[in-house]
Amino acid sequence: MRKFVWLIFLLTLPLSLMAQKGWYRDKTDPQPTVNPDRTVTFRYYAPGADTVEVNGDFLSKAERPALMKNNGNGLWEYTTSAPVRPEVYTYSYIVDNQKVLDPLNMFVWRNISDLYNIFIVPGERTENYQIKDVPHGTVSSVWYNSPALQMNRRMMVYTPAGYENGRRKYPVLYLLHGMGGDETAWLDFGRAAQILDNLIAQEKASPMIVVMPNGNPSQEAAPLENSTGYNLPQFYLPKTMDGSFEESFTDIFSYVEKNYRVIRKKSARAIAGLSMGGFHSLYISALYPKMFGYVGLFSLAVAAQEEYKDVPVYRDIDLELKAQFEKNPPLYWIGIGNEDPLYQDVASLRKKFDLCGYPYTYYESEGGHVWTCWRIYLEEFTQLLFK
Amino acid sequence: MRKFVWLIFLLTLPLSLMAQKGWYRDKTDPQPTVNPDRTVTFRYYAPGADTVEVNGDFLSKAERPALMKNNGNGLWEYTTSAPVRPEVYTYSYIVDNQKVLDPLNMFVWRNISDLYNIFIVPGERTENYQIKDVPHGTVSSVWYNSPALQMNRRMMVYTPAGYENGRRKYPVLYLLHGMGGDETAWLDFGRAAQILDNLIAQEKASPMIVVMPNGNPSQEAAPLENSTGYNLPQFYLPKTMDGSFEESFTDIFSYVEKNYRVIRKKSARAIAGLSMGGFHSLYISALYPKMFGYVGLFSLAVAAQEEYKDVPVYRDIDLELKAQFEKNPPLYWIGIGNEDPLYQDVASLRKKFDLCGYPYTYYESEGGHVWTCWRIYLEEFTQLLFK
Repeated sequence: MRKFVWLIFLLTLPLSLMAQKGWYRDKTDPQPTVNPDRTVTFRYYAPGADTVEVNGDFLSKAERPALMKNNGNGLWEYTTSAPVRPEVYTYSYIVDNQKVLDPLNMFVWRNISDLYNIFIVPGERTENYQIKDVPHGTVSSVWYNSPALQMNRRMMVYTPAGYENGRRKYPVLYLLHGMGGDETAWLDFGRAAQILDNLIAQEKASPMIVVMPNGNPSQEAAPLENSTGYNLPQFYLPKTMDGSFEESFTDIFSYVEKNYRVIRKKSARAIAGLSMGGFHSLYISALYPKMFGYVGLFSLAVAAQEEYKDVPVYRDIDLELKAQFEKNPPLYWIGIGNEDPLYQDVASLRKKFDLCGYPYTYYESEGGHVWTCWRIYLEEFTQLLFK
Repeated sequence: MRKFVWLIFLLTLPLSLMAQKGWYRDKTDPQPTVNPDRTVTFRYYAPGADTVEVNGDFLSKAERPALMKNNGNGLWEYTTSAPVRPEVYTYSYIVDNQKVLDPLNMFVWRNISDLYNIFIVPGERTENYQIKDVPHGTVSSVWYNSPALQMNRRMMVYTPAGYENGRRKYPVLYLLHGMGGDETAWLDFGRAAQILDNLIAQEKASPMIVVMPNGNPSQEAAPLENSTGYNLPQFYLPKTMDGSFEESFTDIFSYVEKNYRVIRKKSARAIAGLSMGGFHSLYISALYPKMFGYVGLFSLAVAAQEEYKDVPVYRDIDLELKAQFEKNPPLYWIGIGNEDPLYQDVASLRKKFDLCGYPYTYYESEGGHVWTCWRIYLEEFTQLLFK
């Protein structure tokens, strides 16, 4: 039956591989290479190219993109000038001004309509982003009907290990993505399932259900998962900040309360989001002040767009916040990076809260408007929930 | 608040985009382009390249890879010589002997450790591969413990629309992947969730649960979903055909029977698989003859490898088949393509079945050892189940 193995080999040998030469053929090491001193070496084989560059969020702004050096055999190399801080990074190559992915790295995340290769520099901070040999929750792609938006829509739901074969009821965190993202963003870039699995296994976070809806009201689901077929999505989808997501939120809420074993109490419900998702969380939690005990605003956009200022959910925010804080929510958490362009807007919001006497927990990190911050905020925030 | 939108735009503008020029920048049409006459046009922007080729399963063997033509502005183009038959296809580009993905197509599937862009030529046969506005099932990534393999392992589970908010019990199809695949293969290349959603909505298939385990006993889960981290998987994982998956199958079975609302009857259970998964289905269904009423063997590998011939599950196959067929399974289905290199092996198996008087349904299609066939077999097979 060796014949079978040989046949299958020929049959499934990627077409692409056959067209490749030299260095590539036997290469199976992870790319790029994280060296023992935590510098990182990138390699790209392109004998005919004039220039090859590497680009990504591991480089400082001044270094971006970094020119690679041809070693004479068609293999271009670049090693970072200093050790790279442990983190998950995204990168791509630019060959003669053409952006391409790394053919030797199959680990790719999608953001909006662009793909990025990823690599990890292991360290303390990235420990919880990795899949470990701990009990794992279930991640489900679930469709619910939204009468408010008049469509079937997809959301991702994390149920903690033990949910399937138990009877226990759980608290729920609703976790919202930013502009240009969709229901998969927190799972890919955000490592939400890994962070929850690991924090729960370490008994640092309470076992909880995490609901990740799609915050783009014009969209049923992420690209390739919706009935519009194989079209590229727009970056600026319509209706993202016009109040319709906030108002349709009860459709998500009703589905979850009906179909999952949840604790039906304000003290067992949290909502959090990043950027536009922080904006959504601010207004949803104020609009439905009996719903959420815990609120997390990560690098949030604060004010409504001019053209939608008179939508009730935005227009009445001050009254709504007053009502919300009169009920003493157990945790109102605001996190932002010290280089975030939204820093001043958030500072103004905090000032308003201080004036009004609304208590909140403030977490300021290094960094800008990036996933590096949001993963950390998720880790910090989830450890404070449902205690 | 236009400021916010502008800031977010700057913040999230893909790094890569900034490094690109000309034609690329404003390009948002789906790539490649399916023309009205069903020819397909491919475009790749690479002003510095000596040769650009396009490769993929839409080309005949003789055409592969196809040389593209530089239009003088750095844009290379190729249009197929004839209309392309409606189907889902995979492709990639080869720039100066370097395989690269299409930077303008974010739709990518992974096979083993290689990524492919995909495109669809719409037509009758591909209708059920598309996400339509019909009730959708839930797809879950579920972890179960396997005492036999001594690890926690991942599987994908499709539960039909209505499962979440009902009390009804359902029949179950166990659906197995081929060599080099994993628990995600039937969902990506196989379009299993879309096929089931659509066939169930058309009332052509009974609502059923579909369990897609990982058939590589050395592996907890697909790459990047397991605790080995960011390493490329081997194509030939150990232990795939040594009997251990077949013998550990009861761990999967027990988990499903315990945790899902299933009909606990042989007549409500099916097992099917492609290639190595067909091999697994043959031996599992024979090893546990009380378990499955329905068996589907898609382009199956038939005989055990020489070194494992004495493993009981393989050694005793003739006796086991006899016992299995004495119990009159309602459906034993064998499908293969007329160009499949395993065609003769399957013909020999059929001859043996004929000699022994074992009834089976035979389905011969055009084509080889490819997903084009396996998607069709899944459509055909699932319509015959649980009637």
